[in-house]
Amino acid sequence: MTSSAPSRLAMVPFVSVENMMRLVHHVGLRKMLVQLADAIESDFLRWETFDKTARVPSHSDVGVIELMPTSDGDFYGFKYVNGHPKNAAEGLQTVTAFGLLADVATGYPVLLSEMTVLTALRTAAMSALAAKHLAPKGAHTMAVIGNGAQSEFQSLAMAEIVGISTVRLYDIDPAATRKCARNLQGHGLTVTVCQSAEEAIEGAQIITTATADKKNSTVLSDNMVGAGVHLNAVGGDSPGKTELHRDILLRSSIFVEYPPQTRIEGEIQQLDPDHGVTELWKVLSGTEDGRTSQSQITLFDSVGFAIEDFSALRLVHAIALDAGFYTDLDLVADPDDSRDLFGMLMRAA
Amino acid sequence: MTSSAPSRLAMVPFVSVENMMRLVHHVGLRKMLVQLADAIESDFLRWETFDKTARVPSHSDVGVIELMPTSDGDFYGFKYVNGHPKNAAEGLQTVTAFGLLADVATGYPVLLSEMTVLTALRTAAMSALAAKHLAPKGAHTMAVIGNGAQSEFQSLAMAEIVGISTVRLYDIDPAATRKCARNLQGHGLTVTVCQSAEEAIEGAQIITTATADKKNSTVLSDNMVGAGVHLNAVGGDSPGKTELHRDILLRSSIFVEYPPQTRIEGEIQQLDPDHGVTELWKVLSGTEDGRTSQSQITLFDSVGFAIEDFSALRLVHAIALDAGFYTDLDLVADPDDSRDLFGMLMRAA
Repeated sequence: MTSSAPSRLAMVPFVSVENMMRLVHHVGLRKMLVQLADAIESDFLRWETFDKTARVPSHSDVGVIELMPTSDGDFYGFKYVNGHPKNAAEGLQTVTAFGLLADVATGYPVLLSEMTVLTALRTAAMSALAAKHLAPKGAHTMAVIGNGAQSEFQSLAMAEIVGISTVRLYDIDPAATRKCARNLQGHGLTVTVCQSAEEAIEGAQIITTATADKKNSTVLSDNMVGAGVHLNAVGGDSPGKTELHRDILLRSSIFVEYPPQTRIEGEIQQLDPDHGVTELWKVLSGTEDGRTSQSQITLFDSVGFAIEDFSALRLVHAIALDAGFYTDLDLVADPDDSRDLFGMLMRAA
Repeated sequence: MTSSAPSRLAMVPFVSVENMMRLVHHVGLRKMLVQLADAIESDFLRWETFDKTARVPSHSDVGVIELMPTSDGDFYGFKYVNGHPKNAAEGLQTVTAFGLLADVATGYPVLLSEMTVLTALRTAAMSALAAKHLAPKGAHTMAVIGNGAQSEFQSLAMAEIVGISTVRLYDIDPAATRKCARNLQGHGLTVTVCQSAEEAIEGAQIITTATADKKNSTVLSDNMVGAGVHLNAVGGDSPGKTELHRDILLRSSIFVEYPPQTRIEGEIQQLDPDHGVTELWKVLSGTEDGRTSQSQITLFDSVGFAIEDFSALRLVHAIALDAGFYTDLDLVADPDDSRDLFGMLMRAA
């Protein structure tokens, strides 16, 4: 080894998209969703350990790019994620993401990972974790309104973690519904293709909305939501991007991840800043009530919070390094003499 | 190509530490410093184009991890950087960094790059750019107090961009000074090793402080700083981490990058929040005065701002892609049908 060759500390394990997909199949998709939900629950139960901040957005006319950092004092994690609803029409992903874990004690990165696939998984796992605590007992049917990239993951997570056996699909684009129905074949779910949102919600105890338009939409109007349902609102996650009519919110018990972020980004951006909401981690820890009656409408106003990505990165870090689903990246300069960065550079000539 | 193979858009050019060093030697170190200073100056001259935010820190007892985002509306860039002064004693870098450029229109990353080496270069280029506008005319001698990883880069940038021909080195650790003096041999500078800070500043028109201790230090006391010098204060860049006695600041004309960040992190954290400072970009654009007399003490209170990293990433993007100093990273999932992330995952089984 010459003195300009990278040292072991200079190497950061990198999980590519290909390795992430291999990792998911190695674990098994349903088992991976369960492990993600468990990892998130475990971190939500030590919520107060984390350094929390609302994500840091950079908005443009066509989308947003965000950084989502957090730390538990031992590890630091952040995710880069974009949201560009118009991308779909151009054949691009609406959401792409990657993330990093670092050692708080040294500041050195310990994992770089793709997170487009991982975010889809953790978002579904988070929704299922919330529904496990909030949906009516014995829920068996879920409406899925918006059948894009998130829809199959939501369906399988709700099947595995909540016990859903039937999904009723609707999208304004029938091709999206056909794609979702086709993908869900062979996964043990009864799949019903519906022609309208009204039809999709018939007999559903859980209603998932996961649409992508960047505007204030009314995917559900007030008269569509009956007593006792659990609403899993995934698509409203940015200023000016909501899915539910305000009147629905006023009839619902609302559960959120991190209030300072959800008030900016979630469905509750439509409400007064002091409208009462419950932090989901308090329900998980038993210090606040979740669902208290069969007639109550519960709403998980999902926007996605940094701790969920942290949990996901920690899980991937453990599995990927153990099973070898990574490559080494020469990302950090680490000269023999730490003060001699210049010497390292000169010796590389 | 199978349908689960990554598409071209899924690939992000990555500049490793090794490729960054090759790139610097390809361009030439001094020419690279000049190009970086030019790139920064050019971006500072369109300062109001940028989306600016103070960096987002996560502090621990032993250091800080920061994210530094900015955007000019066409490109978005951010840097991850840590600062762990105690790392040096453990044989680790005090500062490691990497960064990313993305296309604002799609949110897709277009470059991932190491930035430990690049940050050292751009910090020196920034200091030299400031000194070109603020140091007394005909400055030929610079004191360098703190002879760690930044010291040689500062010396060469000041030589190339400001015309410095002599550097006078001092560090509390004589081994650091010996390392710096050795590294500067053959670079056309007269190098004097000094036994104290007082000795180092003799005859110097520019005084650079680049020490690493995370505390309020007094590298320079008030009586050491005579009329007419330019102070280039690089090491005070974090809350509780300063290098200059407060009385020096009160006698100086102070120039900063982005006041909301410098007031938190720079030497001026010691002053009242309304103490007058001049934004450097206004000096470059000619709308504010720089140095107005030979007896004036000018102080560049350097902390490092996101736009400088953006400029550096844009330059590296252009050179690295043109000259081939990169590898492709499978960082972004990009299925054939953008809504069919699930199908892509399943086909990879």
